[in-house]
Amino acid sequence: MIVVLKENSNKEQLSNLVDWLKSMNIEIQFCNGVHQTVMGLLGDTAKIDIDLIKALEIVEEVMRVQEPYKSANRKFHPLDSVFKVGNTTVGGGSFTLIAGPCSVESEEQICTVAKQVKDAGATMLRGGAFKPRTSPYAFQGLRKEGINLLLEAKKETGLPIVTEIMDISHIDLFADVDVIQVGARNMQNFELLKELGKTNKPILLKRGLSSTVDELLMSAEYIMAGGNEQVILCERGIRTFETVTRNTLDLSAIPALKAASHLPIIIDPSHATGKSKFVPAMSCAATAAGADGLIIEVHNDPSHALCDGPQSLTPADFKKLAKQVNEIHNLVSKF
Amino acid sequence: MIVVLKENSNKEQLSNLVDWLKSMNIEIQFCNGVHQTVMGLLGDTAKIDIDLIKALEIVEEVMRVQEPYKSANRKFHPLDSVFKVGNTTVGGGSFTLIAGPCSVESEEQICTVAKQVKDAGATMLRGGAFKPRTSPYAFQGLRKEGINLLLEAKKETGLPIVTEIMDISHIDLFADVDVIQVGARNMQNFELLKELGKTNKPILLKRGLSSTVDELLMSAEYIMAGGNEQVILCERGIRTFETVTRNTLDLSAIPALKAASHLPIIIDPSHATGKSKFVPAMSCAATAAGADGLIIEVHNDPSHALCDGPQSLTPADFKKLAKQVNEIHNLVSKF
Amino acid sequence: MIVVLKENSNKEQLSNLVDWLKSMNIEIQFCNGVHQTVMGLLGDTAKIDIDLIKALEIVEEVMRVQEPYKSANRKFHPLDSVFKVGNTTVGGGSFTLIAGPCSVESEEQICTVAKQVKDAGATMLRGGAFKPRTSPYAFQGLRKEGINLLLEAKKETGLPIVTEIMDISHIDLFADVDVIQVGARNMQNFELLKELGKTNKPILLKRGLSSTVDELLMSAEYIMAGGNEQVILCERGIRTFETVTRNTLDLSAIPALKAASHLPIIIDPSHATGKSKFVPAMSCAATAAGADGLIIEVHNDPSHALCDGPQSLTPADFKKLAKQVNEIHNLVSKF
Amino acid sequence: MIVVLKENSNKEQLSNLVDWLKSMNIEIQFCNGVHQTVMGLLGDTAKIDIDLIKALEIVEEVMRVQEPYKSANRKFHPLDSVFKVGNTTVGGGSFTLIAGPCSVESEEQICTVAKQVKDAGATMLRGGAFKPRTSPYAFQGLRKEGINLLLEAKKETGLPIVTEIMDISHIDLFADVDVIQVGARNMQNFELLKELGKTNKPILLKRGLSSTVDELLMSAEYIMAGGNEQVILCERGIRTFETVTRNTLDLSAIPALKAASHLPIIIDPSHATGKSKFVPAMSCAATAAGADGLIIEVHNDPSHALCDGPQSLTPADFKKLAKQVNEIHNLVSKF
Repeated sequence: MIVVLKENSNKEQLSNLVDWLKSMNIEIQFCNGVHQTVMGLLGDTAKIDIDLIKALEIVEEVMRVQEPYKSANRKFHPLDSVFKVGNTTVGGGSFTLIAGPCSVESEEQICTVAKQVKDAGATMLRGGAFKPRTSPYAFQGLRKEGINLLLEAKKETGLPIVTEIMDISHIDLFADVDVIQVGARNMQNFELLKELGKTNKPILLKRGLSSTVDELLMSAEYIMAGGNEQVILCERGIRTFETVTRNTLDLSAIPALKAASHLPIIIDPSHATGKSKFVPAMSCAATAAGADGLIIEVHNDPSHALCDGPQSLTPADFKKLAKQVNEIHNLVSKF
Repeated sequence: MIVVLKENSNKEQLSNLVDWLKSMNIEIQFCNGVHQTVMGLLGDTAKIDIDLIKALEIVEEVMRVQEPYKSANRKFHPLDSVFKVGNTTVGGGSFTLIAGPCSVESEEQICTVAKQVKDAGATMLRGGAFKPRTSPYAFQGLRKEGINLLLEAKKETGLPIVTEIMDISHIDLFADVDVIQVGARNMQNFELLKELGKTNKPILLKRGLSSTVDELLMSAEYIMAGGNEQVILCERGIRTFETVTRNTLDLSAIPALKAASHLPIIIDPSHATGKSKFVPAMSCAATAAGADGLIIEVHNDPSHALCDGPQSLTPADFKKLAKQVNEIHNLVSKF
Repeated sequence: MIVVLKENSNKEQLSNLVDWLKSMNIEIQFCNGVHQTVMGLLGDTAKIDIDLIKALEIVEEVMRVQEPYKSANRKFHPLDSVFKVGNTTVGGGSFTLIAGPCSVESEEQICTVAKQVKDAGATMLRGGAFKPRTSPYAFQGLRKEGINLLLEAKKETGLPIVTEIMDISHIDLFADVDVIQVGARNMQNFELLKELGKTNKPILLKRGLSSTVDELLMSAEYIMAGGNEQVILCERGIRTFETVTRNTLDLSAIPALKAASHLPIIIDPSHATGKSKFVPAMSCAATAAGADGLIIEVHNDPSHALCDGPQSLTPADFKKLAKQVNEIHNLVSKF
Repeated sequence: MIVVLKENSNKEQLSNLVDWLKSMNIEIQFCNGVHQTVMGLLGDTAKIDIDLIKALEIVEEVMRVQEPYKSANRKFHPLDSVFKVGNTTVGGGSFTLIAGPCSVESEEQICTVAKQVKDAGATMLRGGAFKPRTSPYAFQGLRKEGINLLLEAKKETGLPIVTEIMDISHIDLFADVDVIQVGARNMQNFELLKELGKTNKPILLKRGLSSTVDELLMSAEYIMAGGNEQVILCERGIRTFETVTRNTLDLSAIPALKAASHLPIIIDPSHATGKSKFVPAMSCAATAAGADGLIIEVHNDPSHALCDGPQSLTPADFKKLAKQVNEIHNLVSKF
């Protein structure tokens, strides 16, 4: 961390700053220029709040040179992380295709979709049991029963299952779930992240609607600091002024996260765009950009599709798309 | 809710839509124009997901006419809500001044600040016991002990206390807390909101960094739907491209929330701007715009202020500001 | 356009609204429901300002059913537009590869790069003569001389040239330029757009940093309304809170614009990301999403590259990338 | 400017960087730490593009210590700028109240409003002659005739007039206009700014919808660098995800601009909120935050108000508001 001091800064305040930094075992190097004094801070600067330093009266500017995340940092872990999930693999050249309905509704529904998406090439099954809904009056998911139905579908198809957790108190219900999803709204629910850090299950961590790439990595760091290194990052659209799509899918996050971290990255084009007609183009784009996989909403029956999200593909559309993205993945893997 | 259908829309899909709406007890009025068919939906449309309808192939456009919130809606509750908190009152013309340090650090610190802010005119004491921090390596607050120290300060000064909850499992620790704060990152932690809906304590609900005014009201609705009508709304800055302030304080939210809802509104200029030098101007602005109060960070000792947030005022600055905002409040109350 | 009136709305104001609409030759259909009155407006609603209607006291909500753009609208022009530019073609299945340096600096520089990018597969040459710079103290481009140097490079290589116009008064200097670029900051310089509507040259219209897809199409409409139908749309990143890239490249704009309009779409990954290391991934992504081409910054000499933008590729990197995006384009063309 | 180099950075690239900096007369101070080498750049760093340095392979991070604006910088001009406009004064403790209709429509209309707003306390008259409209099919203003009508109203009332310029070629028409307005969409129309720098008229420079406070000051710098130091800054809302208001009025820009610059700051609550019912609250807020004035839309006849913007107040509402903001201004002037 580099701190540029103001000219003629108050000696007492500077001495307070130096003492405080030393109390945190930070070593300080002074570079005295003609007009500026620059302090170089060495040591574990990850625990220093940059905003705090920035706001001191004697400080002109501050800049972090080292990233505040460690376990998630590619610098200290140059090779891509690869996780085993059931009979499939995430990261390291594999292409993960997670598909399934928005909400689990019934055994027939989830088992039918599970078979259809498996047949189409999906490597995991997704489905919402606990549903975070903006309105308290909207359907909140089948909850515990939903998880049981997902496990039923897993038994029938062999597909590992991914489903969202909304509160620490539900964690026991996820004992047989293969991948636990943390939704965008909970990306900075730090108590939940800490608890998931104590489990030994892969966590699919969705980026918050207004979270930066760095904040996503810091949330991954919360889980990893607890001992669970199996974090799968997921970009699902950020909030901008544009309304033609529900959110703006930030595909630049793929090369940015690949450069900064060794963790695998999955893209969710369904929630990002909110429109099924844009899902194929964005799935192809994400794959070409180097994503490790996709998570796509697929509904079971087009003629009764009303309760499924507007972002859902039909099984037939998904089958066609799965073939396309695999072809793109194979092509770009050779580049 | 108004639904505009596409010309020549598929009969079967229309019939599916009609059946589904009727299954939710929605009454439908058709208006057949020359070029367009418009459906007016009547009944409890709050439970309909507008995005879902919008995405149907046969639908050109949808628009909600009725707000999806009820308990928080001024239409059904025209008078301002007023809550009793200890010996003070929030809303209905009172001006609430909540002040205190970013984090509770020691008995001496919190009791000293408590006396100082009380003397300066504060009506409640704030202080963080559980601290949501972006980095897992940063100080996470004194937690349970922090709440005990706040209660100590309350005993000494008589000031009601406001402090943040981060997880349902901590709720018992808040038994003697006067106002429970829900932080911006938890505004859509719906399980937590539901649980707080079962308590009988006022909840200070902070707006999420990328949440709309409508979403803030929907989160208030979650608490109110559970039976707890004492929600205090708090604007604390939204995330935009501007970096001269930490976030962008959206003061237009004051008249917007006042028009839409009867709930009191408190403004947090400290976290929004992230710079203590901007706090006085924004406090005056918020008061003049009609806010019901302010929540302001004040640290105890300017010469050792390093661990306090950069957005903290000194007690002396706060005293001056408290006088100013009360004068502005008195002036605008006569308008 | 659909207007929902408030219950018991003022008769005089309604009558004013009706008279005003009729004065603009708008036909009105009333649908009287039990609780709501809905007005359907027919005719040339493109000239009605929706915000104006929305703000009337008697109006509950308004929604536009017809897009306010006509010439740019795919509904009235279902087939993709295809333009001839020199010996190359834009749109309709062709893949356009525009490359060149940020600024034109010297004859040697621009001619060297021109040959290199032509050899690598570029179909047009780009280079800045007039440079819009945030600071008045920064280099503003070679201006007239820069255009002459571009024309020299065109003579030597046969590549059509694309360069940016900044003011109407310079238009005569662009007489031999093949494609005139309108920069992001001028997307809503309406007087300039009108003037370009009178030319017969293809216009590369860049999306403003905070402009919606609809506003981009309205700016295209300005040019087309003047009689020049050759507009090439260009997405180059929008402004969001994320700082890991200079702007956020909105690739969802590709399927959105393809659905709404028949105009070709070119993506600029260089300016969007601001980092050359992210350009290849985003170029591949844009191509896979169905873009009609790319505009990419390439500098001439890596060992003296300082004055070229940080987003510039070396000629060798560009050559490799050109091959890759052409392979992806060929693959997705078969889907 | 401070540049932190990567460990073991390439000697040749470093030498290129040093040579390039020296060629721009930048002096370099090296501070060699154990792990990091820091370069301090001294001299006229305003002309260096920070993004360019940031993107060099050998550079870890860069930070600007000196602001890139000079004439607009309070550091070099500590006292508030004060301009004489007709018989009124802008800045330096005066409170400027600019009012008038969205568009000039007729002599009767503009003269009536002019008298009404003068009577209510306005110190200048505003009115649009050239109208920047998103749609080419919308009314583009009376243009030259509009300016003549404004001059008529000026003659009748003595109020100085403010109106918007859209293109350099119209500049002669503004010979008798008192204050030339640059609209938000033209804030970075650099050729126009340069031309206005050659005039001797006060320029009301509106902040772009997605422009930072620093960019606004850089645009002011363009005008000032040309010799015209009379720039009045105007905040009129920025583009965010929030839709309850048309834009988000960023009142924190007031203390931020006051700290950074000596130029006066005017707030436009009408365009920012887009809703007349929010204008009074935001006007009071802006005044309390220390703005030097307001620019407010007022229409002439409420019963025929349709063509006026939805953000327009009635003359009676404006009269009431003018009294209120003057009371607030008097109060906060004493703080």
